[in-house]
Amino acid sequence: MENHKNDIPMRPIWIDPDTGAVQVIDQRKLPGRLVVADLDTVDAVIHAIIEMMVRGAPLIGVTGAYGIYVAARNAGARAESDAVLAAEAARIRAARPTAVNLAWAVDRTMAAVLSRKTAEERIAAAREEAGAIAEEEAENSRGIGRHGRGLIEAIFHEKGRPVNILTHCNAGWLACIECGTATAPIYAAHAAGIPVHVWVDETRPLNQGARLTAWELGRQAVPHTVIADNTGGHLMQHAMVDLVIVGTDRTTVTGDVANKIGTYLKALAARDNGIPFYVALPSSTFDWVIRDGVREIPIERRDPDEVRYMPGFARTPENLLVPAESPAVNFAFDVTPARLVTGFITERGICPAEETAIRALFERE
Amino acid sequence: MENHKNDIPMRPIWIDPDTGAVQVIDQRKLPGRLVVADLDTVDAVIHAIIEMMVRGAPLIGVTGAYGIYVAARNAGARAESDAVLAAEAARIRAARPTAVNLAWAVDRTMAAVLSRKTAEERIAAAREEAGAIAEEEAENSRGIGRHGRGLIEAIFHEKGRPVNILTHCNAGWLACIECGTATAPIYAAHAAGIPVHVWVDETRPLNQGARLTAWELGRQAVPHTVIADNTGGHLMQHAMVDLVIVGTDRTTVTGDVANKIGTYLKALAARDNGIPFYVALPSSTFDWVIRDGVREIPIERRDPDEVRYMPGFARTPENLLVPAESPAVNFAFDVTPARLVTGFITERGICPAEETAIRALFERE
Repeated sequence: MENHKNDIPMRPIWIDPDTGAVQVIDQRKLPGRLVVADLDTVDAVIHAIIEMMVRGAPLIGVTGAYGIYVAARNAGARAESDAVLAAEAARIRAARPTAVNLAWAVDRTMAAVLSRKTAEERIAAAREEAGAIAEEEAENSRGIGRHGRGLIEAIFHEKGRPVNILTHCNAGWLACIECGTATAPIYAAHAAGIPVHVWVDETRPLNQGARLTAWELGRQAVPHTVIADNTGGHLMQHAMVDLVIVGTDRTTVTGDVANKIGTYLKALAARDNGIPFYVALPSSTFDWVIRDGVREIPIERRDPDEVRYMPGFARTPENLLVPAESPAVNFAFDVTPARLVTGFITERGICPAEETAIRALFERE
Repeated sequence: MENHKNDIPMRPIWIDPDTGAVQVIDQRKLPGRLVVADLDTVDAVIHAIIEMMVRGAPLIGVTGAYGIYVAARNAGARAESDAVLAAEAARIRAARPTAVNLAWAVDRTMAAVLSRKTAEERIAAAREEAGAIAEEEAENSRGIGRHGRGLIEAIFHEKGRPVNILTHCNAGWLACIECGTATAPIYAAHAAGIPVHVWVDETRPLNQGARLTAWELGRQAVPHTVIADNTGGHLMQHAMVDLVIVGTDRTTVTGDVANKIGTYLKALAARDNGIPFYVALPSSTFDWVIRDGVREIPIERRDPDEVRYMPGFARTPENLLVPAESPAVNFAFDVTPARLVTGFITERGICPAEETAIRALFERE
């Protein structure tokens, strides 16, 4: 394993330097156990994405990119065939529909691969491009941290007490490569000695907040408290939240934000209580094509049993959370309209949730 | 057991006709098991209320009233002492802070008791008054059903398809005596052949929706689907909800509604999407004194371990939902401001969430 800190990898995905195999943290097992899994076939890559062994828009993208490397590596001499690789790319691209990073990273890696001829060159190009995307995402997160830290610092200077930040789901380093998106400003502020306290939404049904964000924050000694997803509105009504920061799986150029189901409810409560609601994202998560997020972003429907059981518990009758005959439905994301978003924290800086401002930030060079 | 239907009691509390003992369904055990518990001491009554063996504003009230009967019965000759009974009443009254019905029902029963002299008379008066409150609550629920049914019927006639109703927590017969409050219009519509489908919020942390509302609806063959609490906003954005109906633990005369934590978030989403948001309640749940619900209604804070574990699961390290070192906080209710409430469905009829209208409905006689 590369990238250790206290014997625990500080990245969720890496290449084993000895074997060249792609390895990931199996995030389904956290916080109980830190399990590392090998992704040695395209099927394993797709399975890891679908079953959410890896999750989070930037990490899904990087995993998809490494999936092209796995495809090329396993194809051997057949990696010289564009059609062979394109078929594998299409399968990887389709693993999950909502995060735009997956298609973006697969396409970018495929373009690098197809510009080479031999199988060896293509394998090397895939590994290199996937690695480049990973490094860029890590750098993006550091940039988000630098820009977002100022928001927290300003609140601290105004209020003179720890800054209470609410976040939903996990947009930490487990969802990215380093630092996270929503957590990057928090880690940066904490590292700079600005006192923070994080309200961690449990994030049913898969509990990414209670399992992953709480684990990350605890490891960095960032003060935090886990709450049921129902709680944020009450906290905001009683001035117990200064700032909301969330990640996103896809954000339209018009500023509509797809993120973990329930984000929209927190955005409504923030607006109702005059609390700033920020979305932290790297440029790779912008969708430059779609204009109406609520109508056009595809929302994944997952297995209803993720609602009917708790994550990590055997799906046996005695572990059912609902009557045996009661059906459930499981939409994985919702879309928060731009009008509810105070601003975006990106690697380029902070901007309002408006097309002109977004384009101005990213079209300059 | 009295009040059976298909061998299952259709009330959550009753007096055993043979022994005169107060019996309840232990709602913590549903939907897995139907367990009946004897409440034969005041401590048992208080324990049942605190531990949420019984819950729901009307049922907490009725249980408190029967608690006075248990107190008088167990006091024997000492039931002639006003001070002895008043001390027990004060203990019962303090079991839970948010639902106004508890204090109201205890005070009403105590007034009936103190108007008698002998211990025998006082025991009989307590039993009679508690029984009267229970019958009134049952009648109130039937009234709420009659009045609320029309709302559902009107939507059905307008849309010509099953009416999708979202509810939060359990405001069914398990929370009341019969029919429920939020569910009363649903049961009445279903009985009248109006097609309905209910979105049942899981209602973390104690899962009253997933465990109790789903169980109730299933037994009555009312079509329903369990959803994570995060889901309602997305459903409303996509026209999958026609109507929201919830119960309440305390509603101010100015129209502010305390109900299970998370209700406020659904009210915000309903408002944002132009969906009617109704609160169903009997007159016993109005607080005629407090005027600012958000500032003045006491919000119960419960054991954080209710968040850190799932209800019904042993609180062992392997069942922890969060890292062992991560704290949690557990506010049980929030307050939805009157401005977000379309109207109240009461036993007297439907009225807007305004003081003048509320008083007009209840001050006529």
